[in-house]
Amino acid sequence: MTRTLHLNAFLMNTGHHEASWRLPESDPYAHVDLAHYVKLARIAERGTFDSLFLADGPQLWSNLAQRPAGALEPLTLLTALATATEHIGLIATASTSYNSPYNLARKFASLDIISGGRAGWNIVTTAGAEAARNFGLDAEPAHAERYARAAEFLDVALKLWDSWEDDAIVADKAAGVWGDDAKIHPARHQGTYFSVAGALNVPRSPQGYPLLVQAGSSEDGKAFAARYAEAVFTAQQTLADARSFYTDLKARAERAGRNPDHIKVLPGIVPVIGSTEAEARAAEQALEDHIVHEHGVARLENLLHLEPGTLDLDRELPADLPPESAIEGAKSRYTLVVELARRERLTVRRLIGRLGGGRGHLTFAGTPEQVADVIETWFTQGAADGFNIMPAVLPSGLETFVDQVVPILRFRGLFRTAYGPRRTLRGRYGLPRPANQYLSPAPTLV
Amino acid sequence: MTRTLHLNAFLMNTGHHEASWRLPESDPYAHVDLAHYVKLARIAERGTFDSLFLADGPQLWSNLAQRPAGALEPLTLLTALATATEHIGLIATASTSYNSPYNLARKFASLDIISGGRAGWNIVTTAGAEAARNFGLDAEPAHAERYARAAEFLDVALKLWDSWEDDAIVADKAAGVWGDDAKIHPARHQGTYFSVAGALNVPRSPQGYPLLVQAGSSEDGKAFAARYAEAVFTAQQTLADARSFYTDLKARAERAGRNPDHIKVLPGIVPVIGSTEAEARAAEQALEDHIVHEHGVARLENLLHLEPGTLDLDRELPADLPPESAIEGAKSRYTLVVELARRERLTVRRLIGRLGGGRGHLTFAGTPEQVADVIETWFTQGAADGFNIMPAVLPSGLETFVDQVVPILRFRGLFRTAYGPRRTLRGRYGLPRPANQYLSPAPTLV
Repeated sequence: MTRTLHLNAFLMNTGHHEASWRLPESDPYAHVDLAHYVKLARIAERGTFDSLFLADGPQLWSNLAQRPAGALEPLTLLTALATATEHIGLIATASTSYNSPYNLARKFASLDIISGGRAGWNIVTTAGAEAARNFGLDAEPAHAERYARAAEFLDVALKLWDSWEDDAIVADKAAGVWGDDAKIHPARHQGTYFSVAGALNVPRSPQGYPLLVQAGSSEDGKAFAARYAEAVFTAQQTLADARSFYTDLKARAERAGRNPDHIKVLPGIVPVIGSTEAEARAAEQALEDHIVHEHGVARLENLLHLEPGTLDLDRELPADLPPESAIEGAKSRYTLVVELARRERLTVRRLIGRLGGGRGHLTFAGTPEQVADVIETWFTQGAADGFNIMPAVLPSGLETFVDQVVPILRFRGLFRTAYGPRRTLRGRYGLPRPANQYLSPAPTLV
Repeated sequence: MTRTLHLNAFLMNTGHHEASWRLPESDPYAHVDLAHYVKLARIAERGTFDSLFLADGPQLWSNLAQRPAGALEPLTLLTALATATEHIGLIATASTSYNSPYNLARKFASLDIISGGRAGWNIVTTAGAEAARNFGLDAEPAHAERYARAAEFLDVALKLWDSWEDDAIVADKAAGVWGDDAKIHPARHQGTYFSVAGALNVPRSPQGYPLLVQAGSSEDGKAFAARYAEAVFTAQQTLADARSFYTDLKARAERAGRNPDHIKVLPGIVPVIGSTEAEARAAEQALEDHIVHEHGVARLENLLHLEPGTLDLDRELPADLPPESAIEGAKSRYTLVVELARRERLTVRRLIGRLGGGRGHLTFAGTPEQVADVIETWFTQGAADGFNIMPAVLPSGLETFVDQVVPILRFRGLFRTAYGPRRTLRGRYGLPRPANQYLSPAPTLV
């Protein structure tokens, strides 16, 4: 089979540009409007996207003035979207630091059953003290500890998802025997962070377990991805950086004994599309004009761990920023932003403009052909297995992508023209259904 | 307004009778079949029920042989049902012992928004060591401690649900001001069991917060209900017991400073309906004939905290059972079962037969008129504000109730003929939308 491109729609209220909610077309209440998300999901499904995705953090970001805050909880929202769609994969972000494996494993298994095998889990460890303080902690756990807990969380969750053999239900009415207890495997897990004795109270789901997705690009993050992830979202600004990330991650997976084809790398792209280049640039400028710069400065200071009031809008970043190793959360995002500013010698004002749409992801303004060209180049030159599409404005940006870019990708033979016979999310990404670890002599994740 | 009856449909895979799955009509995979639950929800909605309800416990009950085990996680399933229904309330069981307030408050707020104000929470503290061992504990926490944690959990959750004032979203596009931070109230909770600093990341939902439901009938349970619950499910075997429970609970609520009309009491009833009495009895017998008694004995021994092998099918219960005060979980169920057995001098075999359908709830076999008579008597004689309908077999038992009993209740002027103008679950139960505790000078739950 020819290699095919994979597309994920990263949905976020009125769009990924922080000022998108101010446009006349945008609904400032979209973040809590099921109908808005149903519409987005159906547009993505019309575009035969592999999946859609919701980010998440268990805290309310201050400040409310600047842009829509709060959201429907992703697993809840995706369950509602499961009933409104038929084919598209549904990837929810959930934190290993602020959930218990038993509860979370149940929810994903339930969503996988309800959606007919379309559930995916974007595994995050959740940076930041705000979240920690909502869960009984005084401060954010250290980066390495968060990842150690994440790895143990995964091990427990995988045991739980395998705790029913696929044929554990006998359903022998005449004999009065419903299930076979010999085909149930209690987790019997005693670890550093978790102790979980029993079997899951949900039968094994259509996919076995949700597609495992990950987005951390720090050293710990990449090590984790190489071990567990089947799809990786990443923020990359240049083809060269993206290729080196791609090559590195595939090599790490291989060293971990996995098939490198079974870990799909999807950089994020914020396409701003116009029928001419000038039109696309004008749309980008219109968004930038709506940015309230004081908010952008505060956010940038927060990301860079600087005291409020440090940055000057019309100067470059200070020279004496700490190294990535001193940063406890969002390490790779930190480095990416600093490198972008240094490479292009951006003032803080310009940097905020560049980040407004993509928060570090590749922002690209151009015609549908030009957007398709970028995608094709990265896809064919070893930088991507597909893309995480992050429209600056929603729903219009997704609609334009589906109606104008997807046909070009299809015409070029890069992307599917219809959903294939395999109905699960793993099926879309060309991945096998995982074997049950209690049955396979050499348990494997892929 | 005349007092109206309230009806809740307690849904459980193939029905509440433990042998229901063995009937020819039953689907042994119903417990994980969304279509089955959609069908049930729509039948209940056709019957203008106030709500439907799912029980839950975060553990897999052994043994699988005896009957369907495992289930879709209730909040997930109810979210899917929210999109398949328009009017009916959706009550999910969730544990205060094995959840964190921030996560659970988000999920209920999200379901309330997605369903247009139809969410309810059946608050449980979760008895049993099996559940405890899935969440890092060696043994079940003591009954009193579970209830202390539950009370603090509620206090935190109520703070979180009130953390956005209803008009916190300003949506001023021209000024670039989305929300008003002055209308956000961080929880700032530091307690014995929880510490939660921030505000919820979901705006205040249509109902303010989910309808609060409770079902514990122990002393701790009743004290908790009097303080928090807006609807109470209870198992009562006789009119006299039901009246005394009802009177006691209303008086407790009043002593707690609440309007006693704002706590609705709904005893469970397992109706087995036939067009004649003889037909109903035959249906009941057919179910009893499918019981595998060894399973029933094991379950009864577990409930009564007896060593396996203690009970004899053809004798009555032993005389020297411990008092309720010695029981750590499911206290009131314990007493109810023991009293039923003693009152009617039942052998273990007969007791298992009686419990097969209702697990302690009132089982009543009769014609539609007779079932309506029981409901009317309890409703008009101060024993119930409505009923928790627990069909022995699903979907057929619910269908029969809706098609044959509901019309009688409507004809007698006891029950609504259509859903009224208030679309929320509290609206169905005749309860007001709660005020925001940060705005009301005397915060009140009702």
